[in-house]
Amino acid sequence: MPNPTAAMLVIGDEILSGRTRDANMHFLAGELTKHGITLAEVRVVSDQEQAIIHAVHALSAEYDHLFTSGGIGPTHDDITADCVAAAFGVRIDVRDDARALLQAHYDNSGQELNAARLRMARIPDGATLIDNPVSVAPGFTIENVHVMAGVPSVFQAMVASVLPTLTGGAPLLSQSLRIDRGEGDIAGPLGDLAARYSDLSIGSYPFQKNGAFGSNIVIRGFDGARIDAAIAELAEIFA
Amino acid sequence: MPNPTAAMLVIGDEILSGRTRDANMHFLAGELTKHGITLAEVRVVSDQEQAIIHAVHALSAEYDHLFTSGGIGPTHDDITADCVAAAFGVRIDVRDDARALLQAHYDNSGQELNAARLRMARIPDGATLIDNPVSVAPGFTIENVHVMAGVPSVFQAMVASVLPTLTGGAPLLSQSLRIDRGEGDIAGPLGDLAARYSDLSIGSYPFQKNGAFGSNIVIRGFDGARIDAAIAELAEIFA
Repeated sequence: MPNPTAAMLVIGDEILSGRTRDANMHFLAGELTKHGITLAEVRVVSDQEQAIIHAVHALSAEYDHLFTSGGIGPTHDDITADCVAAAFGVRIDVRDDARALLQAHYDNSGQELNAARLRMARIPDGATLIDNPVSVAPGFTIENVHVMAGVPSVFQAMVASVLPTLTGGAPLLSQSLRIDRGEGDIAGPLGDLAARYSDLSIGSYPFQKNGAFGSNIVIRGFDGARIDAAIAELAEIFA
Repeated sequence: MPNPTAAMLVIGDEILSGRTRDANMHFLAGELTKHGITLAEVRVVSDQEQAIIHAVHALSAEYDHLFTSGGIGPTHDDITADCVAAAFGVRIDVRDDARALLQAHYDNSGQELNAARLRMARIPDGATLIDNPVSVAPGFTIENVHVMAGVPSVFQAMVASVLPTLTGGAPLLSQSLRIDRGEGDIAGPLGDLAARYSDLSIGSYPFQKNGAFGSNIVIRGFDGARIDAAIAELAEIFA
């Protein structure tokens, strides 16, 4: 059976304007690969209702899982939870269990659970909470959509909370070999190798360092012995 | 008149598997913002024909410009040019001017313009070349799609070649103010401010440092005086 597939939706004007460099995509990609879930697509959209709803619709329909990052804080530009509720046509309101988490946290720290903070307890009907050990305000899963915070430390903690609950497949294995020749010199034999090992994914990632060209050849697949064999042939071809 | 809009399509299994951290999105986002073009959406897809063609269709139809990154080298997994040609229903073949660029380059460096390298001279009918001062093999523009390399140094050089040829709008201006209070404390007054300055985009980007919460408030817009006014009010509110 093929591995489950996933998409990621990053929500945030600050990434599209170039102000902030996204860090969550790279983290999630690595975690999903280890867990045997294939990340097939990522989208980044702005903090706009229609853009978010459209992307949630499209990606949750096409893939087994959708992970979102960003837009679930207490400020006016945090509209992700409302958009996800709208995408599934369900009601959203403050929920008692989420409110209790926040109440205990703010009581503890001597802060007020004001109207803004209470927004973080608004959960779409039918969702389950995602634990947030960093800053308490929970994420949530509704249908196949996992809604998480954008702050990297919180995002990572939420991924750690939700991933063990998902059925993964075989972890994708990979080996790589660095070849210090230009891609143009290796492309022919490499293409032949890729054709012979069509059950594996063979990628060539060129680099340029101190004026010299080279390429990292990465061979990925689910059968370690096949990858070993392909790497051995590759090493022999370019020895 | 509103600024032109753009999307970016990043093509590459290596980013989705978590092996490589994309660097081109952040660079392009910053350059477009300076040039007065609004980056509205980014997608990352794998090296698969249908995924690339579908994304090129959707994004070139929806936005004024589409910039692609990756998949135009000489190896078997470089299929972007063919997919873009297919998306527009045009023929693709080795073109004389592109071949001449490569021939001169490889003659110069004493290397052979072999079949693999010649693939980089395959250009869709009707496209114009994008200059590549780093490694010669050109990118190309067809309709509103700008096809560029994935290697960051080459991508950046190609962006520098193509951006001056595009009509930009007013550069998006921004100012930011760091507020050392949790978002929950500032969300109420901040939302009021955002409502009063609805011609500006006011974003709150929370952070956590040494256990303390704070947020960077970023105010963006096209009218510097309005941004000045909003920042002044913001500073006063949270003084």
